[in-house]
Parts: sequence; C-alpha cells; structure tokens
Amino acid sequence: MTDDAPSKVAVAIGGAKYAVSPLAPAGFPDLPAINGVRFAAGAVGVRYKNRVDVMLAHIAAGSTMAGVFTRSATRSAAVLDGQAKLPHLSADKGFAIVVNSGNANTFTGKRGVTDVEVIAQAAADALDLPVGHVFTSSTGVIGEPLPAQKITDALPDLAAALDAGATEPAARAIMTTDTFPKGAVVRVDLDGVAVTIMGFAKGSGMIAPDMATMLGYIFTDAAVTQDALQEMLSATNKVSFNAVTVDSDTSTSDTVLLAATGRAGNLPITQPDDGFQAGLQVVMQDLAHQIVRDGEGATKFVEVRVTGADSNADAEKIARSIANSPLVKTALAGEDPNWGRVVMAVGKSGAKADRDLLTIRFGDILVAENGWIAESYSEDAAAAYMKQQEILIDVDLGLGTGTATVWTCDLTHGYIQINADYRS
Amino acid sequence: MTDDAPSKVAVAIGGAKYAVSPLAPAGFPDLPAINGVRFAAGAVGVRYKNRVDVMLAHIAAGSTMAGVFTRSATRSAAVLDGQAKLPHLSADKGFAIVVNSGNANTFTGKRGVTDVEVIAQAAADALDLPVGHVFTSSTGVIGEPLPAQKITDALPDLAAALDAGATEPAARAIMTTDTFPKGAVVRVDLDGVAVTIMGFAKGSGMIAPDMATMLGYIFTDAAVTQDALQEMLSATNKVSFNAVTVDSDTSTSDTVLLAATGRAGNLPITQPDDGFQAGLQVVMQDLAHQIVRDGEGATKFVEVRVTGADSNADAEKIARSIANSPLVKTALAGEDPNWGRVVMAVGKSGAKADRDLLTIRFGDILVAENGWIAESYSEDAAAAYMKQQEILIDVDLGLGTGTATVWTCDLTHGYIQINADYRS
Repeated sequence: MTDDAPSKVAVAIGGAKYAVSPLAPAGFPDLPAINGVRFAAGAVGVRYKNRVDVMLAHIAAGSTMAGVFTRSATRSAAVLDGQAKLPHLSADKGFAIVVNSGNANTFTGKRGVTDVEVIAQAAADALDLPVGHVFTSSTGVIGEPLPAQKITDALPDLAAALDAGATEPAARAIMTTDTFPKGAVVRVDLDGVAVTIMGFAKGSGMIAPDMATMLGYIFTDAAVTQDALQEMLSATNKVSFNAVTVDSDTSTSDTVLLAATGRAGNLPITQPDDGFQAGLQVVMQDLAHQIVRDGEGATKFVEVRVTGADSNADAEKIARSIANSPLVKTALAGEDPNWGRVVMAVGKSGAKADRDLLTIRFGDILVAENGWIAESYSEDAAAAYMKQQEILIDVDLGLGTGTATVWTCDLTHGYIQINADYRS
Repeated sequence: MTDDAPSKVAVAIGGAKYAVSPLAPAGFPDLPAINGVRFAAGAVGVRYKNRVDVMLAHIAAGSTMAGVFTRSATRSAAVLDGQAKLPHLSADKGFAIVVNSGNANTFTGKRGVTDVEVIAQAAADALDLPVGHVFTSSTGVIGEPLPAQKITDALPDLAAALDAGATEPAARAIMTTDTFPKGAVVRVDLDGVAVTIMGFAKGSGMIAPDMATMLGYIFTDAAVTQDALQEMLSATNKVSFNAVTVDSDTSTSDTVLLAATGRAGNLPITQPDDGFQAGLQVVMQDLAHQIVRDGEGATKFVEVRVTGADSNADAEKIARSIANSPLVKTALAGEDPNWGRVVMAVGKSGAKADRDLLTIRFGDILVAENGWIAESYSEDAAAAYMKQQEILIDVDLGLGTGTATVWTCDLTHGYIQINADYRS
C-alpha cells in the first residue's frame, strides 16, 4: 500500500526485499525540460534513510495550474489545503509544489494542518511566492506526526538547486512502495506550434477508481487558461487515473496537479482543445498504466473492456466489478481462463445484464455467448492466452451502447506478502 | 470459491489438500429431528467421487415455506425457478428440496432451465408432490451442463431412504470448498410451547453481503403462516447472511429456504413474533458466522461494529468498506494493528465521516480519537490483541445514532492459493 509502508520502502529502494515489478517499463523515459519548470530533490530523512524523499517543483510566473484530488472523507491536511487554494490563483506569480514521501501527514489532527502551513510558508519564503501558490503533498505512513522541520530546513537549499532537467530525481523522491519511478511525455502540435506535456507519478497500492492516482504531477509549456486547464484535467482524469484499480482501496492523499507555463508560444487555449486533451490523455493513461504495472505483487496487466451496456455508467459498474473481484483477480494470477467468475462479477455489479445476451472474450478468443460457452471455445487455447503478461477481458452486454474501460492487475501472493507484513 | 472449484473439493473431503479451517467449531452440532421433516443424502457422482453430493429434504403437508435468493443479475436457473414458485404455494401438499453440489447449473443456457424442470419433476413423482412445491439448488462449477440424469435416477432411492435424523449427511452433501459442515439449532418457548429451529448451510468463498448465504436450509416445527414466515426470514437475513463477507464476491446461486411444519402445537404465528425471530436470528447468525469461519484461507474471525453514524445505511456502508478492504484484511492476516487502513476505509466508503470525531477501538483498546492517535494507545498492547483469533474492530463516527455490524475474515496466502489454483 502507499500510505503506510515506509520501512519496506527503504528496503525496496535498496532492491533487497521487493524486486522491480515484472511489468515495469524498460527504464525511466527521457523527460524533456519544460520551459518555465524546474525541479530539485533532497534526502532529508523524513522516514527513509539514504534516499531522496522531498521534491520541490517551481513553475514560473505566467503559468496556470489545475488540480484533482481524492474524494475520501478522511483526506489529508495537504489535500484539504490544496483544494482550498485552487480557486484563488492568479497567473502572474508562479507556483511551487512540495512533496515528501515517508509520512502521509494524514489523521494527524490540528498539528497536521499546521505542518502543511509551515511547509508552504517556508517554500513561499524560499521562492518569493505567495503562500497560496504553494501546493504540498505528503505520502507514506498514516497517523504519525510529520517531521516538518526536516523539510523546511531543506527548502532553501532545494530552491537553490532547482534544475529543469532534474525530473528523474523528482520522480524518485515521491516514491513509497513503488518499485520503479514513473514518467511519461508526449509532444502535441497545436496549429503548427509544438508543445510538450510531461509528468511523473507514484503509486502501487491503495489504488482504486474514484480519484485514484496516488500522486501525479504534469507539466506543459502550452498556454492554457486556468478554466480550460481544469476542465481538461478533470475530464482526462476520468479515463486515466480514475480508470485504474489495484485493490479497490482509495488513498487519503491522492492528488494530480497540472501546470501550464505558456512558454511554447501557442495561441492560448481558452476552451477544451481536442489535440491538447488527446496528448494529455496519452501522458495520464501512460502514468496510470504504470501504476497498475507496479501494483503490489502484480504479474499481469489487465484491461477490462465493457461494451453494449445499457449506459456508460452501467458499463463502468460492470468493468469495476470485474476488475475489483478478488475471485477474478486470483484466477488471473493462476492463469486460469475462469470465465464463470467473470459472469459472477457481471451479475453482482448491480448494472443491467441479461445472461442470454452476454458475450465474453479473452483477447480474441470467444469464450461465451448466448448464455452459454461458445461452440468454438477451446480451454487449451484460452489457458495459453492467460499465460501472457497482458490480458484483455472483453465483455459485450448486448443491450445498448454504453462502454467503459478499466485497467487492473492480478491478485497474487506478492500482494499478501507486502501488505500482511508487520509495519515495523 | 463456491461456484467453481469442484476438483479441489473432492481433495478437501479427503483431507489432503485443504485442512479444516482453524476457526471451525469443535464438531457438527447434534441437530434434533423436526417433526415433519426428513432428509436423505446420496453419492451420485455429479462431479466429485466417493462423497455425498445430492441432498433430498421432504417437508410434510401442512407446512409453510419462505425463501430469499441472490440478487445477482446472472442468477442460476434453479434460483429463477425457486423465485417463480414461491408466490404460488399452498400449505396442504408438503414440499421437497433437492440440492446437488459439484455443478452450479449456472450460465448453462436453455438446457440449464430444462435440467431444473426435469429434476423437480422427478422429485415430485417420487414424493407425490406438485412440481411447483419442489425447490432445487445447485452449487459447484459454473458453465458446464449438469448431469441431471444422475440425480433423477437416484431420487426414488433417496425418497425411500428419507430419515428425520439424517441432518449431518444432508449438510455434508451440499458442501463444495467447505472444510466442515455447518449446522445450528435453537429452542424457543412460544407461550409455553417449545419449538425448535434448526438448519444447515454451506459456503466458504464468493461470499458477500447482498444476499450472500451460499445455500442455507432451515426447518422448524413451529406453526407460522406463509406471510409471517417470509417476513421474518427476510428481516433476519439482513442481519445474518447478508451481514457477512469473505471476499465481496456474490454467488449466482445463493438461496435460503425456511420451512415450518406447524407440528409443535403452538398457536399459529400470523405476524412477526419477537421470540421466534430472536431464535431464528440465533440460528441464522450462527450459520453465517460459520461460513465466515470457513472463509477461504481465513485465520481470523472479525467483527466490524460501526456506531454513531449519520444513519444505519451510512453505518453499513462504512462497515462493509472496512470489512471488504483488501488492505484491512491483509493487515489482519499480518496481525498488524494498522488503524491507518481503517481510517482509509472509512474515508473511501462514501458515507458521511468527520476525521476529528472518529473513534477507533481494537477490542477494548482505544486506538484513535479526535482526529489523532489516542494518548493511551500502546502499539505493543494492540499488536498483542491482533494475535487473537477473534478480532473486534469498533468504529464510532461521533455523528449520530446509525449502527451496523458486519462479520468477515482476514485475507491470507491461503485465499490466493485456493483461488489461483487452476480448475482442473
């Protein structure tokens, strides 16, 4: 899980206890600099030893900022602070983002609120920003006081070290149980002007739909108004971070921020723009998929695609019911083409379904149709398909035009091992 | 899981592969005969070899019958048949119940419907009953045609062997992945007349609230009108079978039937009766708890008690969110007093919660209050408590008077092992 497994993380970084996920990409991508954005990362010992655990990002004056946050009723002080600040931003000041790993500053009472204020003020002082333009996130253990002074003491040095190229250290500093840092980039042509959208994220457990990113920070040199930026971020979040699930558990700290510096020279985007949003979706889905690929104990990357539902909402209910079903997820772990469990998950979803109209495919293999197993179905072929690392479960309800896609991973002994370990 | 793990079951019965749950009761209870009810069990080889797999119950003329069923949209042919028959019963004919394990006759198209009709007709013929008074259930693998003839061929012999004392063979015949048969009994005094309520059930996985019994059959010699019987069964189901969860997955076959023979000589109950219902609740909760105790891989029996919620519905949302959270359940498996995960599960439930009013206890140990860890909290004491087999997680929202209790088990390597195994 993300929000309370610090001691393991230190070990994970050392590489001894938890190996890098078998589903990890080949390496961290070469993230280009975004004109107007600089990063620094430091090892201040919030909880982990001998690894970077604080990230500072500075976004130049003239930028806009959008954000989406967890809807948890027990969300952290930093999330509440960010949500309060977002409606009151101006473009002429610039922004800072301060993130620490190792301690989530969640369920820490009034002290937690004060710690957020103290850190934001220290960053504002170090970068000559209004405190209302400093966003913070904390991720790690829940319920322990944050050693805020370790962070505030480090902020002047971090401010002095800011560097447009320091994306990988920044991506590493926000990791908790992650076994690899997660970055993504895309270039988009906006009426002849090339703009770049890049970002990084963290998360490997306590991941579920309903604003389920863990932490994600995305930056672009495109010029986009605050309102258009927010609208595109919220819409894209639904089909990226909010469409992945590892274990159906939702963090108290989930945050995605998107900053646009406007330095690429495009005509400012004032309304949601299809081209920009398509690029944003590429980056956000890539990051969301990497979170699934780093799902605790994951050995399979699974796409659940539902079509033909009575509505999109019904399709989503069914896709999530399948993707969150422990029985489906253990069957995936066992490489078992157990379509009976898919039928069960469709049935329990609460969405409209007619057994006799249901069609189920594993990849291209037709498994069941018309209320029974398909005549062409071969258990051997299906079993061979399930041995792949990337699995598609395709369900057609045969009722209407509602569709939804959700990404998940399997449920393995590795998940139990990571999460049943004692904390200390 | 219940509805598709037959080959394992045969092994389980032999005792080789899956040991009896560490949470099992000492033995099958001594279930008394109910005047007017007789049972028979046979080994017909539906799928398992060398074990009883068909149960026949006969309930004498003059009895009433009530039932509750899964709400799954992909429910089995037998469930649909039972639901259709229930509103059209008369008291002067008697009833039969036929249950097979090994094959769920679910997602078997039109043939599945025919197989239910064929079995019900054979039982009706053997016992001289109207076919509309024969209820059937099937539990086992999904999506394979039921060898109905093996069952129909055996019914005459089973009818001839009916015996009021054959409750344990009946309880064993309905088992699938269960590691022990589940029975319960209570005696209730109704204005000086002693009546008995007894029953048996099966289930160990694919168990979740929302009509989650798996299969349960309850019998009483009390005289109760059909309407009162149904009303009391439905109400009691909510606080028994529907208040347990092993893995949040809901079967396609869940069924509970309650038959009342009226031979005890009490004044017929025509309206819900507190005394009878209290006794029914004892039996149904006992059976429901046994299902949790046989939860696949379970090593802890866990009560999640929520009080002080804004409404009962909110309390139930929170209790289920905690009880179904993989992170809470793995912490329980690891004997980790990880209250941060309880906070997370409260937050994600969608119910109203105020972090600063939340009180969390593990057993009698005050863990957190007023938005932070309790001053008196001792991690050592909590860790010692978590080593017990029976755990209470007590959450007071501090908002209102809504309450709910849900029972669950931990999530262990055993669950993965049982459910990630290949089917054949």
